[in-house]
Amino acid sequence: MKEINRIGVFTSGGDAPGMNAAIRSVVRTALYENKKVTGIYHGYQGMIDAEFTDMTSHAVSSIINRGGTILKSARCLDFKTKEGRAKAYANIKREGIDALVAIGGDGTFTGAQILSQEYDIPVMCIPGTIDNDLYGSDYTLGYDTANNTVIEAIDKIRDTAASHNRVFFVEVMGRDSGCIALQAGVGGGAEAILLPEKETAIAELIELLEQAEVRNKSSMIVIIAEGDKNGGVYNVAKHVQEKFDHFDIKVSILGHLQRGGSPSSFDRVLATRMGYTAVRELLKGNSGATVGIRGIDMITTPLEQALNNREFKLNEELLEIAKVMSF
Amino acid sequence: MKEINRIGVFTSGGDAPGMNAAIRSVVRTALYENKKVTGIYHGYQGMIDAEFTDMTSHAVSSIINRGGTILKSARCLDFKTKEGRAKAYANIKREGIDALVAIGGDGTFTGAQILSQEYDIPVMCIPGTIDNDLYGSDYTLGYDTANNTVIEAIDKIRDTAASHNRVFFVEVMGRDSGCIALQAGVGGGAEAILLPEKETAIAELIELLEQAEVRNKSSMIVIIAEGDKNGGVYNVAKHVQEKFDHFDIKVSILGHLQRGGSPSSFDRVLATRMGYTAVRELLKGNSGATVGIRGIDMITTPLEQALNNREFKLNEELLEIAKVMSF
Amino acid sequence: MKEINRIGVFTSGGDAPGMNAAIRSVVRTALYENKKVTGIYHGYQGMIDAEFTDMTSHAVSSIINRGGTILKSARCLDFKTKEGRAKAYANIKREGIDALVAIGGDGTFTGAQILSQEYDIPVMCIPGTIDNDLYGSDYTLGYDTANNTVIEAIDKIRDTAASHNRVFFVEVMGRDSGCIALQAGVGGGAEAILLPEKETAIAELIELLEQAEVRNKSSMIVIIAEGDKNGGVYNVAKHVQEKFDHFDIKVSILGHLQRGGSPSSFDRVLATRMGYTAVRELLKGNSGATVGIRGIDMITTPLEQALNNREFKLNEELLEIAKVMSF
Amino acid sequence: MKEINRIGVFTSGGDAPGMNAAIRSVVRTALYENKKVTGIYHGYQGMIDAEFTDMTSHAVSSIINRGGTILKSARCLDFKTKEGRAKAYANIKREGIDALVAIGGDGTFTGAQILSQEYDIPVMCIPGTIDNDLYGSDYTLGYDTANNTVIEAIDKIRDTAASHNRVFFVEVMGRDSGCIALQAGVGGGAEAILLPEKETAIAELIELLEQAEVRNKSSMIVIIAEGDKNGGVYNVAKHVQEKFDHFDIKVSILGHLQRGGSPSSFDRVLATRMGYTAVRELLKGNSGATVGIRGIDMITTPLEQALNNREFKLNEELLEIAKVMSF
Repeated sequence: MKEINRIGVFTSGGDAPGMNAAIRSVVRTALYENKKVTGIYHGYQGMIDAEFTDMTSHAVSSIINRGGTILKSARCLDFKTKEGRAKAYANIKREGIDALVAIGGDGTFTGAQILSQEYDIPVMCIPGTIDNDLYGSDYTLGYDTANNTVIEAIDKIRDTAASHNRVFFVEVMGRDSGCIALQAGVGGGAEAILLPEKETAIAELIELLEQAEVRNKSSMIVIIAEGDKNGGVYNVAKHVQEKFDHFDIKVSILGHLQRGGSPSSFDRVLATRMGYTAVRELLKGNSGATVGIRGIDMITTPLEQALNNREFKLNEELLEIAKVMSF
Repeated sequence: MKEINRIGVFTSGGDAPGMNAAIRSVVRTALYENKKVTGIYHGYQGMIDAEFTDMTSHAVSSIINRGGTILKSARCLDFKTKEGRAKAYANIKREGIDALVAIGGDGTFTGAQILSQEYDIPVMCIPGTIDNDLYGSDYTLGYDTANNTVIEAIDKIRDTAASHNRVFFVEVMGRDSGCIALQAGVGGGAEAILLPEKETAIAELIELLEQAEVRNKSSMIVIIAEGDKNGGVYNVAKHVQEKFDHFDIKVSILGHLQRGGSPSSFDRVLATRMGYTAVRELLKGNSGATVGIRGIDMITTPLEQALNNREFKLNEELLEIAKVMSF
Repeated sequence: MKEINRIGVFTSGGDAPGMNAAIRSVVRTALYENKKVTGIYHGYQGMIDAEFTDMTSHAVSSIINRGGTILKSARCLDFKTKEGRAKAYANIKREGIDALVAIGGDGTFTGAQILSQEYDIPVMCIPGTIDNDLYGSDYTLGYDTANNTVIEAIDKIRDTAASHNRVFFVEVMGRDSGCIALQAGVGGGAEAILLPEKETAIAELIELLEQAEVRNKSSMIVIIAEGDKNGGVYNVAKHVQEKFDHFDIKVSILGHLQRGGSPSSFDRVLATRMGYTAVRELLKGNSGATVGIRGIDMITTPLEQALNNREFKLNEELLEIAKVMSF
Repeated sequence: MKEINRIGVFTSGGDAPGMNAAIRSVVRTALYENKKVTGIYHGYQGMIDAEFTDMTSHAVSSIINRGGTILKSARCLDFKTKEGRAKAYANIKREGIDALVAIGGDGTFTGAQILSQEYDIPVMCIPGTIDNDLYGSDYTLGYDTANNTVIEAIDKIRDTAASHNRVFFVEVMGRDSGCIALQAGVGGGAEAILLPEKETAIAELIELLEQAEVRNKSSMIVIIAEGDKNGGVYNVAKHVQEKFDHFDIKVSILGHLQRGGSPSSFDRVLATRMGYTAVRELLKGNSGATVGIRGIDMITTPLEQALNNREFKLNEELLEIAKVMSF
């Protein structure tokens, strides 16, 4: 095993709360171990463009509580080409970077895996995405914060909901994953939750709402993941409105505010542990893997395994509980 | 002047944060003055349906910090008829109510004025609406809280905005009033603000964004009031997207969450002062007026004057400042 | 196994955010299973005084987001006597309660265990305390919320800290458990953390702060659990002040605000799952156990085991990480 | 009037939320008017030490929502000497600064007045302090944010208060000013409020609490400003405990967290308007004055007048209202 003297760290793909806390942890752990750290801006694009900066302990002070990522992020098409990766590696080499910590989602993992295989450079990944849709960790970075953001929005809607005959539709993030919709739906006390993973016919939704009305609920909140298969929140709302003409239908589309915000305590500590573990694993000789949390323990999973598996984190039991709670 | 022994209090129209704090203040002030209080549910509809409840000091404890209104609210068509009002007055009479405090917007004020004129019952109004569009007060109840809700959303979007070439559109409440859009746009540091009171052609917006891009802004936030005259946020976004094809356009529609939430310190104290003043004015013989704040002082304005005037609260200077700040 | 027709639910000991969400879940799960539910006010004291109320689905609507406990809580000396428990059981019997769900800490668990043994009544416990000091669950109810409350306070202090040569001491809850201090210290980026489980001599703290000063930190935050063995926050502050006379020492004592607040997404979903599991386990014939979470799964642990064991949740690694991060 | 080409801006004294928003506004307004801006670090100390930085529009982006001050603050003894001020002025001169905007409290105002008189340099002040104790503005910068911080703390305490016989003491900032205590006491629904401006004998407080107990309040919250004349919160608590031995007394000392936090919408817009006005007034030839808000309008007040007057912002009526509300 080649000695590691300088570690490169970057964020890639969609940003998530906690990424800054992870960067800080990578930097401080490496410095503590007498290693140097280079921050790479704009993810893989920044490797190709050699956007590098030397990271000091000061550079990461007062960022643990910041949303977004100080290293910026970007999607990068060039990196998908052999030429792009060659250029990236040449830059890394010239900068003296011996190992990488990549923070992001499955696109980030894929890039890291290819690079580490083609050029034999040690890489550890940290799962950072609000969608909680990566294999190898009970929770991804940013998921907890996003859930808190969504339930605060639902709480506010609930305040105003109580007085009128109204159905509120709240669209939340999740193109392929209903994790936020389910977690925030249960946490927000929603009457119905529509997920990409589970088809709910509009007829079924209407029946559910009719039953809720019979049970004397004067207002109802429906959480709908953006990846729901019923043609989008406005289409669902339109169909429900036709049957519920005595109800006022209101729509909120939370959008990108779910990606921002100061990370929760959970995400900050998770990010800190993940950054620490990623560096320690690199220094122990581990590579081509992602860190994760199982229970209260840090684990690592080979990238190949992480990328080829899917865990159904939509706890089936929670689906059942959601139904029971709206009873 | 007839002696007042029992005061009726109700909320009407769209709800707003601080209404509960105002109810609490009306109740406690009246009890302190050895008067009795009846809570009327569902606004004018509850008068017609005789939905009354006796209000004790305990009934209003721990509500100062709650969004919504414990007395519920409703819109009421029947009250616009002479028969409806006759029925309402008969119920009020039977309940022993000698005077009313009405909390709501201009619809509420109109109803209160007609009733007080037709039946000679003393009425004081409290301006409760997040839109800040009523004459007779520098601030309406709920406006400050709504502004805080919107800037928190903008802050979160800003977190995630920094890394990508993106234009974010955030639709905020305000069908006829751009107060929230302007205040939250300035407070959130938006690059552009579209208001119902001021036509901004889409071409003008695009020019503004192009200038911002030239000044090297990698992300931009546009606040758009729901009453903007350009055909809705999606239409504006579509037109901007056509010119900004190298940018990613994202839309958030905050919707009714702006109506909810625990009231801010400002709104709680304003509500408390308004409730106190409304009751004291009734007991001093005042009627047919709304309370309000001017500077740090409580004032009253005759309903006729309040309903027939409009103050342009869109501080012209603030429009100029918004432009300067996005420079 | 005797059939269960009516379940009694109560909260006892210090309250914690999420207790209301747990009550709601117990009630709705039981009703869904066609059982009846009695709410018992003021914990064991309310059993002795027969303070009972029938719980409908409506009684628990809109409480999922409320701090505190709608069933109140109390400490109860009488229940420690045989006579007290006899009276409690007689009341339970008369009310037709066949099984109990107890929400609280180890005092609550002990009471539940004794009662279930003396009178053969099925009991399931839910660990509700912000201290996270119970065996049988990775997390107790309220712990996550308390951590978020504390880091928000630290974030605010950090804002004002940056400009002056200052040491800030923040006392957090935890008489016997340093969980909050450690988690919030890491999440808040504290320079030093003092815990009840681990003696840190004041001399050691001063050395730590001197090193931080050498590394050019112009402000430092020290988190100190109330159970720290150095004579209290003011005593520690005084000793540090003597050595750091060029620094301004400031003290915050967060106190009971750590117990309140709207529960986090994590605590709401945990509470909902725990309430659901407690009722389902009772109906399956389980008794004398506590529910808990391990990883993402619900588990149960016999009360005897839960009361006689201690898990050192102060992840040793996290102690090490705290040190590395303040480097 | 000499032409102004470069404006210096600094923050001084205790920091307050909104200072960054004011700095941003000063910078952007000046740049918009084709002027240059120098940021002066650490207030008057930085003038003496020539800690200057050129301010671009980018330098102030994304700071509108940050607590603290990016220009840091400090107290400065040297500036009280003629030599100190001579050195400061020489540095200012060399930097090419033609005018100053000073953000801070009365110490800041005094320094600005002396400098502008001794050296004939135009100065405008912005009142930045959470204490709201300056003449010339209905509200000082940071006051609204601090009030929101305090009521959020009180709300959390209220959550946990409901179940036990408890008296909670919450110490808030205000050595000479009871503004925060009164505003947050009314907004938080406190049972009693102790202010520096108004002596409340402990005997009187105890009587008040006894009356509250008679009215069946099971928990009570007392807000006490740090400047209260009864020997500090612990002393008051001790005396109350002696009489209320059946109550559990709990103390929270909020401390410096009241100074931090992201500024509220109100403070951000106020800061933006004040910064804009300060620059515009300088450019119009105004000097030796402070900006302020009266009602919804910006005003200016000569420093001499501002420093020699006091407005009793403790709205007398609000004191009465506080009493009525706790009834």
